[in-house]
Amino acid sequence: MTASIPATRRKLKNSPILDAANGRTPERTPVWFMRQAGRSLPEYREVRKGITMLDSCFMPELLAEITLQPVRRHDVDAAILFSDIVVPLRAAGVGVEIVPGKGPVMDKAIRTAADVKKLAILDEDVPEIAQGIGIIRDELKDSQALIGFAGAPFTLASYLIEGGPSRNHEATKAMMHSEPETWHLLMERLTPTVINFLKIQIDAGIDALQLFDSWAGFLTERDYRKFVLPYSTRILEEVAQYQLPRIHFGVATGELLGAMSEAGSEIMGVDWRVPLDRAAERIHAATGPKVLQGNLDPAMLFAGRDVVKEEVARIKAEAAAAIDAGHATGHIFNLGHGVLPNTPAEAITETVAIIHEN
Amino acid sequence: MTASIPATRRKLKNSPILDAANGRTPERTPVWFMRQAGRSLPEYREVRKGITMLDSCFMPELLAEITLQPVRRHDVDAAILFSDIVVPLRAAGVGVEIVPGKGPVMDKAIRTAADVKKLAILDEDVPEIAQGIGIIRDELKDSQALIGFAGAPFTLASYLIEGGPSRNHEATKAMMHSEPETWHLLMERLTPTVINFLKIQIDAGIDALQLFDSWAGFLTERDYRKFVLPYSTRILEEVAQYQLPRIHFGVATGELLGAMSEAGSEIMGVDWRVPLDRAAERIHAATGPKVLQGNLDPAMLFAGRDVVKEEVARIKAEAAAAIDAGHATGHIFNLGHGVLPNTPAEAITETVAIIHEN
Repeated sequence: MTASIPATRRKLKNSPILDAANGRTPERTPVWFMRQAGRSLPEYREVRKGITMLDSCFMPELLAEITLQPVRRHDVDAAILFSDIVVPLRAAGVGVEIVPGKGPVMDKAIRTAADVKKLAILDEDVPEIAQGIGIIRDELKDSQALIGFAGAPFTLASYLIEGGPSRNHEATKAMMHSEPETWHLLMERLTPTVINFLKIQIDAGIDALQLFDSWAGFLTERDYRKFVLPYSTRILEEVAQYQLPRIHFGVATGELLGAMSEAGSEIMGVDWRVPLDRAAERIHAATGPKVLQGNLDPAMLFAGRDVVKEEVARIKAEAAAAIDAGHATGHIFNLGHGVLPNTPAEAITETVAIIHEN
Repeated sequence: MTASIPATRRKLKNSPILDAANGRTPERTPVWFMRQAGRSLPEYREVRKGITMLDSCFMPELLAEITLQPVRRHDVDAAILFSDIVVPLRAAGVGVEIVPGKGPVMDKAIRTAADVKKLAILDEDVPEIAQGIGIIRDELKDSQALIGFAGAPFTLASYLIEGGPSRNHEATKAMMHSEPETWHLLMERLTPTVINFLKIQIDAGIDALQLFDSWAGFLTERDYRKFVLPYSTRILEEVAQYQLPRIHFGVATGELLGAMSEAGSEIMGVDWRVPLDRAAERIHAATGPKVLQGNLDPAMLFAGRDVVKEEVARIKAEAAAAIDAGHATGHIFNLGHGVLPNTPAEAITETVAIIHEN
C-alpha cells in the first residue's frame, strides 16, 4: 500500500509525544490534557465573548488562538485542535447549535429511516479548519505536536437521535435494537463524514489524531461490538495510510477496552476508573501491547499540589509496571477525562510541571 | 449474638424473592425494578399533584399508596419503599429540598470540619415512615416482599459536599484526598444516620433491604476501599443481626463489584454494563458466591416486546451460567439501573410478564 503522506506534515524532531507514540523513549514524560483548551482559561473566556461556541470553531484565527492558549500557558507537549464533536455535522449543513450549560442541540431529532436518508454527509473541504491548523502549525515549536480530533459515529448518532445530550441514550439504544437496519444506515452515513473530517485535518498537517467515542461507556460490550466497532474500525483503517499515531478514547469504558482496542488505534486512552496496569492487561489480551494514554482523575486538580504529586507518581508507576510486564509499549500522560470547567488554571500548569519533573 | 428479630416481621411463605435471596429455588423468577414507584406511572403523577417529593416521603398513607401502585399494576414480586436518599437527612433536620428535574439541593454545602461537626445525626424514630410501612405490610400478599431502602454514606456525602447533584464530584474527591480527617469525620456522622434509618424500617417490618451507593461508580477501587468501604461494611454489619437479606448496588460499578461485595451483603445488584456471569466471577473471586440482582438495561423498555424477550432470555442464561459455575447462588431479576422516568407503564408490565414466563 502506498501511503500518501501529506507534503505539508511537519517533521517533528524530539517531540516527546510522538516519541512515546512510536515506542521510542521520550526525553520527558509527554503530557497533554483533554479539554485543555476552553473554559478553564480566563484568556479563553475573554476571546470567546459574544461568539458562540460553534461559530468559534469555524473562525481560523480564533480557533488557532484558543488551541494555542493552553500550550503557551501550561507547557504541555501537544496542542489539541479546538473543535467540537458536532463540527463536522455543522460543516455538512446539519442544523445544530451548542447551548451553553447544556451541549449540542439538534434542530430536529433523527428517528426514522426517512430522516436518516436525508442526513447530509460531509464530502467537501472545510477551509476554515484547514486554515486554522496552518496557523497553529506555524506557531508550535518542533517539540510540540498538534493532535487532530473527531467524535466517533456512535456518539454523533446519539446526539442526532436524542436531539441533544442524553443521560440514558434510550432512543439511541431502542433504535439499535428495534430498528437495526435504520441504525446501520445512520452509521453508514456518519462514517464517511468522520473520515472526511479527519482527512481534512491530516491534509492540513496534524501530527496525531484522537477518535473520541464520548458515550461508548453507556453500551454493553455486546452492543458495542455489534453496533459500533465495525464503524470505528473502518474510520481508523481509512486513516492508517497516513501513518500518524491514532488515539482512541471513551469515558467509563473499562469494560470495553479490549473491544475498543480492536478498532485499530496505536494508543488507547484510559478513563481514570481503571488503573493503567489493569487497563494494559485488557488491551494486551485483546490486541497485544499498545501505548497507554491517561489517566489522572480530573477532580484531583481540585485537591492541591501534594495530592497531585502522589497521584502522578502512582500513575507513572502503574504505566511503568505495564510496560515492564510487556503489556504496553509506552505512556502519554493525560487526564482520565477532560479538564473540568471550573479547574483553576494555575492547578493545571502546576500539574503539568509535576508530570514533567521526572 | 442474640438476634432481636422484630416481632412485627411478616412470616412470608412462598415469596419468590425471599426464596431466591436465601438460596432456595423460587416458584418463578422473582423480579422487582428499581424506581418502579414513581414518575413512569400516571397514578403516581396524579397523587403527587401539589405535593413536593420530600413531603410525600413523610406522609404515611401517600408513601404507602405510591409504594403499592407498581405492585398492583405490574405484578412484581416486591415493593420497594418509596423514599429518597436524602430522607434520613431531612428527618435529622438537615435543610434539603428535591428540585424537580434537578435532584436534592442542600440549603448549605458542607465543606469544612466545622460544618461537619454541626451536621445533625438521625437518632430518633421517624414515625411517618414506620406508619407507612405498616400500611404497606397490611396490603401486600404473602408472596410479595417489602424491600427497605437507604442511600450509602458516600452518596449522601457527595450531595452534602457538592450542595446538590454533581456530574464530577470534584469537591467530594478533593475533600477525601486533601482533608481526609474531615472526610472520615463526615462519614462517621453519616454512618449512624443510615444505620438508624434502616433499623426504623426493620423494626416496622421490611423483609429485605437495599443499600444504594448511587455514585460509587465515580470512584476508583483504591479510593472506594480507603474512603467508603469501611463505612458501608459497618452499616451492613449493624443490621446483620436482623437476618434479612441485604442487597448492595451502585450504578456503573463493574470495576468495584469485588470491593462492594466485601461490604457484606447477601445479594449484589449489577449494573447493565457487565454480563451477570462476568459479574459473578468478580464477586466470587472476592467473597465467594452470592445472589445476583439485575441487570436489564432500562433503555430496552423503549425497544419493544421482541427485544425485551431476547434480552431477558440472555440475562437469565447468564445468571444460570453463573449459578452452574458455582459463582452465584441465585438470581433476582431487576433492571441494571432505575426505571427511566418516560418509560411507558405498559412496557414495564409487559416486561414483568416476560420475566415471569418461564
